[in-house]
Amino acid sequence: MENEIKTFSESYAMKGGEGLHSYAQNSIAQRVGIEAAKSLIQRAIANKFDPNSAYSRKQICIADLGCSTGPNTFTAVQCIIEALELQYKSQGLVIPEFQVFFNDQVSNDFNTLFKKIPCNTSYFAAGVPGSFYGRLFPKESLNVVHSSASLNWISKVPKEITERSSAAWNKGRIHYTNAPKEVVDAYASQYQKDIETFLHARAQELVGNGLMALQIPVANDVTFGSDFYCGKNFELLGTCLVNMAKEGKVDEEKVDNFNLPIYFSTLKDLIKIIESNDDFIIDQMETTDTKTQSIPVNVEAYVSLHRAALEGLIVNHFGAGIVDELFDCYAKKVMEIPAIMDIQNLNVVGIFVLLRRKY
Amino acid sequence: MENEIKTFSESYAMKGGEGLHSYAQNSIAQRVGIEAAKSLIQRAIANKFDPNSAYSRKQICIADLGCSTGPNTFTAVQCIIEALELQYKSQGLVIPEFQVFFNDQVSNDFNTLFKKIPCNTSYFAAGVPGSFYGRLFPKESLNVVHSSASLNWISKVPKEITERSSAAWNKGRIHYTNAPKEVVDAYASQYQKDIETFLHARAQELVGNGLMALQIPVANDVTFGSDFYCGKNFELLGTCLVNMAKEGKVDEEKVDNFNLPIYFSTLKDLIKIIESNDDFIIDQMETTDTKTQSIPVNVEAYVSLHRAALEGLIVNHFGAGIVDELFDCYAKKVMEIPAIMDIQNLNVVGIFVLLRRKY
Repeated sequence: MENEIKTFSESYAMKGGEGLHSYAQNSIAQRVGIEAAKSLIQRAIANKFDPNSAYSRKQICIADLGCSTGPNTFTAVQCIIEALELQYKSQGLVIPEFQVFFNDQVSNDFNTLFKKIPCNTSYFAAGVPGSFYGRLFPKESLNVVHSSASLNWISKVPKEITERSSAAWNKGRIHYTNAPKEVVDAYASQYQKDIETFLHARAQELVGNGLMALQIPVANDVTFGSDFYCGKNFELLGTCLVNMAKEGKVDEEKVDNFNLPIYFSTLKDLIKIIESNDDFIIDQMETTDTKTQSIPVNVEAYVSLHRAALEGLIVNHFGAGIVDELFDCYAKKVMEIPAIMDIQNLNVVGIFVLLRRKY
Repeated sequence: MENEIKTFSESYAMKGGEGLHSYAQNSIAQRVGIEAAKSLIQRAIANKFDPNSAYSRKQICIADLGCSTGPNTFTAVQCIIEALELQYKSQGLVIPEFQVFFNDQVSNDFNTLFKKIPCNTSYFAAGVPGSFYGRLFPKESLNVVHSSASLNWISKVPKEITERSSAAWNKGRIHYTNAPKEVVDAYASQYQKDIETFLHARAQELVGNGLMALQIPVANDVTFGSDFYCGKNFELLGTCLVNMAKEGKVDEEKVDNFNLPIYFSTLKDLIKIIESNDDFIIDQMETTDTKTQSIPVNVEAYVSLHRAALEGLIVNHFGAGIVDELFDCYAKKVMEIPAIMDIQNLNVVGIFVLLRRKY
């Protein structure tokens, strides 16, 4: 079991605490995803959650995977519980007790998460440390699984892209955007393995008929070279690192070895991976409407948003010394093309997937 | 639910991290308790845990209440799991999956706890924040509950001992030792209420026939005025605070208002409280042998042990400024009577109680 749990590097957790660059203060984009999925989740539970089939259990167990430190996780969980309660009420059934498992990396700031659990919760809360690319719960112990804006984080950087001798060596970049086909393929292959592992683990943990609601960011199209495309933001950050290496501020080899464990599948490829799984029935799959949910941001907030997500990873690889200068450089680049801050321009869309565990 | 959970002040958690004065580095005394109870737990599970009655569940859920940051909690849990596995094996049954809930105050350092969970665990781990003097888990969701050296912490200081107008006002002391009868009674009454609340909550959370193994420090006798007695260590710490108040280093009123939420029942009184509960069968109740387990300590280690347990409480009431001087003073007093460091001299004994939830 331990091997499965430890596959996801500890350095991937979002920035903890409640400071300026913390995830808690910088997760508006992820919140937009959750808000967009809210009515979809409510509808999904209304249509697909059967209190009678779960009723033999005295408690209903819900897991939010990749919860980070809040507040988005509390919003998502509350939305799910309200929808479940409505189902019990509408059928004249006694509402069961709810147990909620908040999961994230071992290195996640659970202390901050626990302090922020709302006072008026109607559930029993627990934190579960470990990678969701592995088993986290006993067999058939969960009724509902939720995960939002977390499955675009792959379990590890594909080994071959950090090897100088490999055709997939990703020199001078920190992501696969605008990279040779070999690099893109290595990322895509890791992503496929990871999603399969994820589905396999959840298939064991969910009860028969248990529901899994996933909100996954994917690339709407991948026409590199145009003004905007999915991943251009990471490319910009990469050029900052390359510049710092040129100026002797960072070791060049360290930059060549550094790659972001983030991947945005195409919708088509993701569907193929999910459909190839035999354990789940796909109840629903649709893109979420981000058009009406665009985020009002300024450069500072936009940069902090990336810093909250990536600082742990960067500090782990380069040390803490470079972070301020790196994000100052990034801020300047963003100021040159402010339109990059609009998620719609980056062609990232959210896919809402509702899966149901076969009996 | 939230009111029940919030009764235990957040300042009561042990000192986190892994530093010099952390609980993780200073919990030898508690470890002695666990080591002493180890064979008792193993025997209790062998005699009283019936795999067949729990066998309909696919997982076995175990909770360690008041776990702090390790390593004692991992030792205790491992001991329980090994004993359970043996039961399944000896009856030729398939070993189920185990889920372990590590519980402590919201302010406990769960980040440190999670990082220290051993790699080779055969269980799924979760952290549960909140006071055990209230509900923490859904109804009938636990199979085995364990708690060691934590039920001597009461949920709050009795209100009347901090009120100047009350007959129980505990002026010039921080504990009930050598205090007027009214103070002792107030503590005893709070303790009784707390243990009853604890048992009531666990009775709901345990499945029928579920086991609860408690290791509770109690006072072997309470002859104040002799050279040594249970609580004399806290009395010494209190005199340091009173001295600091005399020297104008601490506000006198603050000292008068400060009291430790720690109580050592007599064995007789504890038995009475437990026997008055209708939900549990008392399978076993015996004192654990600490004679062969005396702890080799020096003054520094002994002071650190108290500092790990009490620093959070003191900082919360007086601020961080006084802590070093206070424990320097305490060290001097301990050096004057080094025999105080032997737990046997203090007449604290451990009681091992095995309770079984009635059907």
